[in-house]
Amino acid sequence: MTAGPLTAGVDLGGTKIQTVVVRGDEVVGSDRVPTPGTNADDVIAAIAGTIEAALDGSRPSDLGGIGIGSPGAIDVSRGVVSRSPNVSGFQREVPLGPKVSEALGGVAVRLENDVRVAMLGEHERGAGRPFRNVLGVFVGTGVGGGLVLDGKLRDGRGAAGEIGHTSVTPKGRLCSCGRRGHLEAYAGRGRMEARARKLVHEGRRTDLFDIMKAEGKPRLSSGVIAKALRKHDHVAESLVDDAVWALGIALSSAQNLLDLEAIIVGGGLGDRLGQPFVDRIVEAMAPRLFVPERPPAVLTTELGDLSGAVGAAVLAGRSITAPRAPARAPEPARGPSPAG
Amino acid sequence: MTAGPLTAGVDLGGTKIQTVVVRGDEVVGSDRVPTPGTNADDVIAAIAGTIEAALDGSRPSDLGGIGIGSPGAIDVSRGVVSRSPNVSGFQREVPLGPKVSEALGGVAVRLENDVRVAMLGEHERGAGRPFRNVLGVFVGTGVGGGLVLDGKLRDGRGAAGEIGHTSVTPKGRLCSCGRRGHLEAYAGRGRMEARARKLVHEGRRTDLFDIMKAEGKPRLSSGVIAKALRKHDHVAESLVDDAVWALGIALSSAQNLLDLEAIIVGGGLGDRLGQPFVDRIVEAMAPRLFVPERPPAVLTTELGDLSGAVGAAVLAGRSITAPRAPARAPEPARGPSPAG
Repeated sequence: MTAGPLTAGVDLGGTKIQTVVVRGDEVVGSDRVPTPGTNADDVIAAIAGTIEAALDGSRPSDLGGIGIGSPGAIDVSRGVVSRSPNVSGFQREVPLGPKVSEALGGVAVRLENDVRVAMLGEHERGAGRPFRNVLGVFVGTGVGGGLVLDGKLRDGRGAAGEIGHTSVTPKGRLCSCGRRGHLEAYAGRGRMEARARKLVHEGRRTDLFDIMKAEGKPRLSSGVIAKALRKHDHVAESLVDDAVWALGIALSSAQNLLDLEAIIVGGGLGDRLGQPFVDRIVEAMAPRLFVPERPPAVLTTELGDLSGAVGAAVLAGRSITAPRAPARAPEPARGPSPAG
Repeated sequence: MTAGPLTAGVDLGGTKIQTVVVRGDEVVGSDRVPTPGTNADDVIAAIAGTIEAALDGSRPSDLGGIGIGSPGAIDVSRGVVSRSPNVSGFQREVPLGPKVSEALGGVAVRLENDVRVAMLGEHERGAGRPFRNVLGVFVGTGVGGGLVLDGKLRDGRGAAGEIGHTSVTPKGRLCSCGRRGHLEAYAGRGRMEARARKLVHEGRRTDLFDIMKAEGKPRLSSGVIAKALRKHDHVAESLVDDAVWALGIALSSAQNLLDLEAIIVGGGLGDRLGQPFVDRIVEAMAPRLFVPERPPAVLTTELGDLSGAVGAAVLAGRSITAPRAPARAPEPARGPSPAG
């Protein structure tokens, strides 16, 4: 058994709760359940349940801390989540930290934004380890970003990292945030689905929605898109072409401004499409780089869909070794979470 | 007299050399001459001459150090400039640091990129003082940027800050770097002039070139553009409209990614057009901000066209108090300098 304190990390998503228990660098247990579609109390009970299951015989009181990554607006100091439209009961304020702590006998709980914990996971335990200046772009339902500069996850004033809301074309497609032409309007799965429906409405043929139904999915999941691509579905191909195009623009502009060592492409869609998707993004960025002879490394994640849970466990471990800095302002509302 | 070492700062531009001598926080002398249009030796002699003039009776040996901000590719460790097309003789490698040092009896000389020293000046002695996270955008012949994060001027791998090469529209105007649709293609004075010539060629009427001739300027200077605006010249107005539009897009995307406290708008054109220009940029950014209720402060420079020289003097002072970190890789070539 590796040395170090035992911590739990929870990645709360709109469709699933993924939990790991970690000792030092090693994942010693994990559990995953669908996110209850009923109310906040059920979600809290489910989170506590995954932690107990992942502990696999150890007791909650053995935990040095619990970290939770959640979509929505996070008040880190109070442990409160709100405005998280994809989790039942989380549109209103939910004191998630205190409630989970209470359910598990008072273990300290630390909350963070889901994208930021995923970036923390990849930077500390995944593909970002060799780099001190790295951007993570998490391509899922939305497009989130986490920025590590000089080895430190950047907070800004609470809202840094929103690469998904980079303008890629002035009068483009509608974004989830209500503005037009953002990266997320092209590369976020939610907006890709809206686009696919529009194309079908205009008479284009696609198997996307048949595959979706056959798989029993309520949404165009990453798996559905990947399957349609394998069948050379033209609509799916054009959606991914557009996503790659938009990522090429937004990421090259970010690179020109920040001169990063590396960019990590993750999230549900990024992880599912993997290296071929990353290769296409590299190709789309290349002609747009101001210093083309020194491009950043562009990489897939190493932890895949465990990035968030592992990052949350890392966060919990930090609370043990270094007390939390003074409370900062609550975060503003975000667009839909890119997790999953 | 303020305490602190006496240092000199030089802002080398394509049209002028601006030098200050500084003690502590106070500018105690300054000089400004046109940049010789002949060869590198004349430029070096002119720089040494401005330092002697700005010393105003003190001797070069009284100087704790000299800082020089220069356009072009800078090799900081060797004090060498190259690929600076707007300074005569500086297309090839010029050992500017050693030569100026030699001309002034061996005073230590430290070289940096012109935009970066201007940002240093504004951050340490100008409008940026209250902020730890601030972007300076210098709108001149080109559009340069300097990024201070957590109180530190960001280098990246030598090329951080290139906000001018943010994509604002995928298939837009030609940029000085050869790509299309960059901020600089709309807001850089060099590209604005090219656009004006194209519009004239297409039959549009403008007083811009008459004003330019009457003022004896070889280029559409910031003063020429400002004068045409005062006369409600339609072409000048449309050029500035486009610049504001492009700045609104690029700066809001940067804000969404970095969540900055402040953005400082300087450079020849920024300084000349001043607060009304900044007000228009604020307006153009507002609808594009992801957290509109908490916009960054957007400010004019405080030091105006002394930003670069004062920043260079600050840099020279740093060399005295803290020895230079190990040499980093030479900087790559840049587009035309935004200075002036």
